[in-house]
This record gives sequence, structure tokens and C-alpha cells, in this order.
Amino acid sequence: MDIIQLFDWIGTFVFAVSGVMTAIEKKFDIVGATIIGLVTAIGGGTLRDLLIGSTPVGWMQNETYIYIILLAVPICYLFKKFILKLRRSMFLFDTIGIGLFTILGLEKTLSLDLSIIAALMMGISSAVFGGVIRDVLCNEVPLIFRKEIYASACLAGGIVYIVLEHFLAFPGWNMIISIAVVMIIRFLAVRFKWHLG
Amino acid sequence: MDIIQLFDWIGTFVFAVSGVMTAIEKKFDIVGATIIGLVTAIGGGTLRDLLIGSTPVGWMQNETYIYIILLAVPICYLFKKFILKLRRSMFLFDTIGIGLFTILGLEKTLSLDLSIIAALMMGISSAVFGGVIRDVLCNEVPLIFRKEIYASACLAGGIVYIVLEHFLAFPGWNMIISIAVVMIIRFLAVRFKWHLG
Amino acid sequence: MDIIQLFDWIGTFVFAVSGVMTAIEKKFDIVGATIIGLVTAIGGGTLRDLLIGSTPVGWMQNETYIYIILLAVPICYLFKKFILKLRRSMFLFDTIGIGLFTILGLEKTLSLDLSIIAALMMGISSAVFGGVIRDVLCNEVPLIFRKEIYASACLAGGIVYIVLEHFLAFPGWNMIISIAVVMIIRFLAVRFKWHLG
Repeated sequence: MDIIQLFDWIGTFVFAVSGVMTAIEKKFDIVGATIIGLVTAIGGGTLRDLLIGSTPVGWMQNETYIYIILLAVPICYLFKKFILKLRRSMFLFDTIGIGLFTILGLEKTLSLDLSIIAALMMGISSAVFGGVIRDVLCNEVPLIFRKEIYASACLAGGIVYIVLEHFLAFPGWNMIISIAVVMIIRFLAVRFKWHLG
Repeated sequence: MDIIQLFDWIGTFVFAVSGVMTAIEKKFDIVGATIIGLVTAIGGGTLRDLLIGSTPVGWMQNETYIYIILLAVPICYLFKKFILKLRRSMFLFDTIGIGLFTILGLEKTLSLDLSIIAALMMGISSAVFGGVIRDVLCNEVPLIFRKEIYASACLAGGIVYIVLEHFLAFPGWNMIISIAVVMIIRFLAVRFKWHLG
Repeated sequence: MDIIQLFDWIGTFVFAVSGVMTAIEKKFDIVGATIIGLVTAIGGGTLRDLLIGSTPVGWMQNETYIYIILLAVPICYLFKKFILKLRRSMFLFDTIGIGLFTILGLEKTLSLDLSIIAALMMGISSAVFGGVIRDVLCNEVPLIFRKEIYASACLAGGIVYIVLEHFLAFPGWNMIISIAVVMIIRFLAVRFKWHLG
């Protein structure tokens, strides 16, 4: 099995869990929670696909993502307390997720011959806009605007990836290194309470 | 005259009225109310068209919808009190509307050879996302996330439609039965105060 | 240098400044402020491009807009106080911006053989929806729904443009006159505190 595919699925699952848990906290009903889970997990990639003109959007052509998200819903309801205790592991997978989504979004944009700056923007959007839409639908100011190094970690990872692709030619390693950059920045930022501006 | 077309127009009108009335309650000016009316009535179908890649979106190719919505605006201002008393009839047409929009959205998605699960999601989106965007623009938590059997009634109707299409071949009746399913679930849900989760 | 191009860039810059300043007021960090600046400046045109099916969206094919917006971010942080004093000049350029964006959006839509009513709607969207998305992301009720003649000034300018194009054939002048109409209505509205409904 492809390791990238596996992490893509795990990232999707973790994003869905984050959406469903937010919805449960907000006392949404199960349908609302499912919609928020879907939007959180596929919202960023969907926005990217719309902007670069790649429609029908990705998840319509590969149902696996939807099944993974729909699986996350009952799991959240059944293991609510357990999941809240798992925050640390969730954070680990969330960080792998945003790293991977950044690079995959960036690659997809470059594959359409769009510019590097557009690719960086689409990489970041893929990673963070699901969470932004989740927060907007829950009537909250989006979390990433207010705190934590989040989008900027994605930006750093994206730049590292583009530099590596330009000078080296080991696609697999370039991706792993770039995702590691995103993860390390995120970990350090949270550990030492870094913030910008 | 085509009965489906007629109900599509009535549904559009009722959705527009619901948007304009919400905007009036929120003390928006007439331009704001018009925009909210438009967004409520065509927002769900527009989102569907964007996601499945059917652009320019539907209402750009058929101006009738826009005229119907623009007609709803002065009617709301002139008959504000009367409309507030009509809640029960409004609810009837709203329910026909979401049933019809679900099935039309579902059919349009299937006609592009997309999967059944994508079609169900697009059917529901067509029916409910206009209201979601209305609530987001009015800075409210979307109503459908919090109460009432709404999206789930659309889901049930959509599933019934797909099953009927698979086993029977009377398109007209399949649509009417599926819309009836949406309506009956909605009526029972409101009558007996059903809710999920 | 093309005067239209110049005003397009100035308008983009002023919109970006308005987004960044709002984000700073809301205590967003610099990444959040950059995202809000981008969304405010390119959000309206992006929505238009998505709806009319012109993808990849405009700014992906011309990086100048992005650079102008990214330039606005440090300028806002460095000259915060000075910019707040410049409100009057900002208002002038904002008004040129919405006038120009209305006509450019309208023209782009007409060039795809879409209807006049669709073109008017897309012209207005180009001009005002960046600000709407800014307000939604900042968890505020969009300003344009509540006060000031704003979208309606764009509508008036758009109608003047279409009438002039139909009866006269001096494209440059038609655009300048239409933008002037938007500006005059805006100025009078603010000066005499006009409002609708």
C-alpha cells in the first residue's frame, strides 16, 4: 500500500473528527455534525479544485474520502470522551495531515502549469481552508487567524518543497522532508507558544 | 405547462421570500435584502453547479429564476404582515421546494455520470445550502445544523428516488413519490417535534 | 501605461489595505491579516470567475495582483496610524476601485455571451463580494447589507454603462462616465447620509 495514500486517508479522518467534535461541542444534531465533518475534511481541497478549475472536484471522483468521513461520525459519537483524551495523538496526525495536504495541493496546482505563487497559495488553502469553513459555519472567528503558527508552517513547508524540487530530484524524499518541516515548526510553535504579530 | 417547472418556480419564490424576510428582520436595507433573497434561492443550486463543474451556473442561462426572486422583494416589503401570518402555507411550499430541489440536484449530478453518493450529497446541498449561506451572511449559526429534521428528510427522499429509479421506470411518479417522502418526514418532524442527536 | 490597468492595481491595493486594517483591528496575526487582505482584494473577482466558469481564476494567471496585495501587508503594519488618518483619500480610491471593478466584471461576463442581468449581477459581485467575504471571515454582519449606498451605486453605474454601450460607441468614455456615476452616487450618499429602506 502506498504510504502517501495512507497518510492522506488518515489526515482526512483526523480532519473529519475535528469537525465532528466541534459540531458536537456546539450542540449541533448528527446531520449538522456530519456536514461539518465533511466540510472540514474536504473543504480545503474543494476550494483549491474550484479555483484551479479542476471539476468535478476531487472527492466526487474517489468515494473513499467520503466513506472515511462518514465512518468518523459514529466513531466520534461512540468514543467522545476517549477522543478528547487523545488530543496529543490527534495533534500528531493533524500535523501530518496539513503537511501532506499542503504538498499535494501544491503539486496538483503545479501540474496544471500554474505559477509557483499560485501553487503555494493553493497548497496552504488545501491545508487550512477546511478549518476556516468549519469555523465560519459554526459562527466563530476562524482559529487560524488568531493564534498559532499554522498557515505559516504550511508556507514554510511548501517553500522547502519547491526549493528541493528545483535542486534535487528525489520526489519521495522531497515530500517527506517538506512535511517534516511543517511538523517541526508546528511542534515547536505549540511547545514554545510561538505566535506572530 | 410543466408541473415540475411550476413547482421549481414556486420553490424558488418561497426560498427568496424566506431570505428577504430574514434580512428585513435583521434590519438590512433593501439591497441587502435583495442579495440575501438571491443567495437563499439560488445559493444551493449554485454550489452544486460549481462542485460538479457545470458552469456558467444554472441561473445565468435562464433568467426566469432571477426575475422571480426580484419579484419576491417588493412583495415582501408590501405584504410583510400578511406573509408572517402565512407561515403555514409558506412551510408547505418550502417543503415542496426542498423535496423538488433535492431530486433535481440529484438527477443533474447523475446525468454527469457521477456516483450515487455524490448525487445524494449534491441533492441535499441544492436543497439546504441556500439557507446555510443565508444564515452565514446574517451572522447566525445555520438553522439546519441545530434543529428539525431537514437535511435528513432530503436524504431519505433522495434514497427513495434512487431505489425507485433502479427498480421501477416511471420517472414522473418516482419524483412525486420521493418528494412526498421528503414532505411527509418534514411534516411529521415538525408536528411531533422530532429531532436527532 | 494603460490608465485602466493602473486604476485596477490601485483599486486592488486599496481593497487589500482595507482587509489588512480590519484584520489588525480584530487582533489577527500577520498571516491572518495577509489572508484577509487577499480575500478582500480578490474575493469578488474570484467569485465572479467561478460563477461564469472562467477558471483558473484571474489572479492565478497574472501574479501582479498577488504582489500588490502582499506589498500592502507590510505597508499597513508600518504606517498603521498614517493610514487611519488617510481615510478620506482611501475612500476616494475605494470608490474608483468599486466603480472600475463593476465595469470590468460586467464586461468580462458579457464577453462570454451571458445575459445583461447576469452581467450586472457579476459586476456588482466583483465590486462588493470581497468585502462581504472579509466581513464573514471576521465574524461580522457584512457592512454593505446594513448601511450606505454601495451595491446600488454599482448597479446604477452598471446600468449607465450598458445603456451607453448600446447607444454610443466610445468604450473608453463609456467606462469613465460609468465609473463617475458610481463615484458621484457614493460621494453624495456619504455626504448627505443617504440610505435605503
